[in-house]
Amino acid sequence: VAAMLTSSSIAVADDPLPSWNETATKQSIVAFVERVTRPGSPDFVPADERVATFDNDGTLWSEQPYYFQLAFALDRVKAMAPDHPEWKTKQPFQGVLEGDMKAVMAGGKKSLIEIVAATHAGMTADEFEQIVTEWISTAEHPQTGRLYQEMVYQPMLELLAYLRANDFKTFIVSGGGIEFMRPWTEATYGIPPEQVVGSSIQSRYEVRDGKPVIVRLPEIDFIDDKEGKPVGIHSHIGRRPIFAAGNSDGDWAMLQYTTIGRSPSFGLIVHHTDADREWAYGRESHIGQLDKALDDAEQKGWTVVDMKQDWKVIYPAK
Amino acid sequence: VAAMLTSSSIAVADDPLPSWNETATKQSIVAFVERVTRPGSPDFVPADERVATFDNDGTLWSEQPYYFQLAFALDRVKAMAPDHPEWKTKQPFQGVLEGDMKAVMAGGKKSLIEIVAATHAGMTADEFEQIVTEWISTAEHPQTGRLYQEMVYQPMLELLAYLRANDFKTFIVSGGGIEFMRPWTEATYGIPPEQVVGSSIQSRYEVRDGKPVIVRLPEIDFIDDKEGKPVGIHSHIGRRPIFAAGNSDGDWAMLQYTTIGRSPSFGLIVHHTDADREWAYGRESHIGQLDKALDDAEQKGWTVVDMKQDWKVIYPAK
Ligand SMILES: [Ca+2]
Ligand SMILES: [Ca+2]
Repeated sequence: VAAMLTSSSIAVADDPLPSWNETATKQSIVAFVERVTRPGSPDFVPADERVATFDNDGTLWSEQPYYFQLAFALDRVKAMAPDHPEWKTKQPFQGVLEGDMKAVMAGGKKSLIEIVAATHAGMTADEFEQIVTEWISTAEHPQTGRLYQEMVYQPMLELLAYLRANDFKTFIVSGGGIEFMRPWTEATYGIPPEQVVGSSIQSRYEVRDGKPVIVRLPEIDFIDDKEGKPVGIHSHIGRRPIFAAGNSDGDWAMLQYTTIGRSPSFGLIVHHTDADREWAYGRESHIGQLDKALDDAEQKGWTVVDMKQDWKVIYPAK
Repeated sequence: VAAMLTSSSIAVADDPLPSWNETATKQSIVAFVERVTRPGSPDFVPADERVATFDNDGTLWSEQPYYFQLAFALDRVKAMAPDHPEWKTKQPFQGVLEGDMKAVMAGGKKSLIEIVAATHAGMTADEFEQIVTEWISTAEHPQTGRLYQEMVYQPMLELLAYLRANDFKTFIVSGGGIEFMRPWTEATYGIPPEQVVGSSIQSRYEVRDGKPVIVRLPEIDFIDDKEGKPVGIHSHIGRRPIFAAGNSDGDWAMLQYTTIGRSPSFGLIVHHTDADREWAYGRESHIGQLDKALDDAEQKGWTVVDMKQDWKVIYPAK
């Protein structure tokens, strides 16, 4: 505790957000945090109500050319293929094995669900955790050559730490799989498993060979996206955040739920504007479409991060 | 933080469990906590893995002559009756209104679900929170004359505080309704809403008259009991506890999940043996049946609290 207090005090004393340029975006974040934490401030919020929720894909780490969890699933299909000779002639698996993403995508959502069911279910929770842990610590993004977990946003890591140093409790609220994130979010983001909310498949408890296990079933349990995000927050956290960050229309409902009719509150949108250092996309994008939420941002007073203008660096130094 | 550290240090220095008699039960609890927290101990567990889960009904507060949440539901039926003239001649509501519990119970589980649906759904989450908050701060138990929330177990309050003072994170994992507990668990037990796991009904997010709301739906979402408890723990917490406390066969799976093949770990069973100061029941009881888990306790090394022998007091001083 002492070490934590010391390091947070130092961070606040120096510059809690060194990778953020000195723009209005940074100023609005700092002003909000000071407003809700200063004792006697009319907008003071008690520490236990300082709940901050963060989308993951495109908000805390990259998501192009497709969600990293899909990259994981495709890698798993390849790794599991020797045990599934039938996949050689069966879509969408054939497409994955032949590197023909067009054939994979031709099957639409149904194909993706088949891939998820084959790669994310049928094992115990402990086994899946091991598989994810191994993948996340070794798999590299084909375009950047970085490990996927090295493609987290340095400015957002600083923002998470800054909020926690000011007694916010930080949560992930992602459309991604909850069990895909939990094995690495504590080391990467400082967010423990119990503060990760995500989409889930069903599971069952059983005692197998005398050992208690959670078995992962090939059925969707909950989709933590769009209107699902407030529901996931309500179910897991049980109180409304005062701070929410997202990057797409999938976060629109969460941003509304956090900010409408509530003061003080803060909505943050990460806008991908930097084709040189990361990717530039938004209104028309298939992955991470940001359209309605961006239209709404001005009226609702949400702060929009312009990655190119607002961030000194994108990824952590290697 | 300083105040918290100070008070916890004092608690540890004096006697962290003053309402517990100096029996083997208390000794085994203290020995376990010292074992997992002493640096250099072969059984040392890092603070972030010190997860402790507690059943609620019969473990943290009383549950006789029937679950307090049922008392809440019956009170709600009475309060809502003026808007439902048809209930006068319709079971199970007629039975509730006429105080004829035999007629209510004659409908079995189906009747209880009807009562829950009528009293727990159809409003927003905020509205339900207000209803619960008002009830819990005013409703009295007919036999003791205490508020229901004054029928929590003083020794268990001390145990919760003792564990937290030793950097455990304490959770409730109850068959009771998650939204029925969350409005008062922080004030009563020191457990914040996000650390409460329970049974739930489905809910939906919508913007109503420009205001974001969570609407409570009359459909069961998840039953956090028996084999559901490890599933609820997996879903909400995402790691196995090292300490679990329960009082009935509904906790059997949670106790197994926490302790089998795991060292260090601790299972605690609250056995209701005190007909004078509380209630005495167990193997044959309809509410809080404790049979198989009690059989299993010796073999698994779970510690059984004999309320009559182990506890100096039951409830907090008024
Ligand atoms: Ca996103
Ligand atoms: Ca119980």
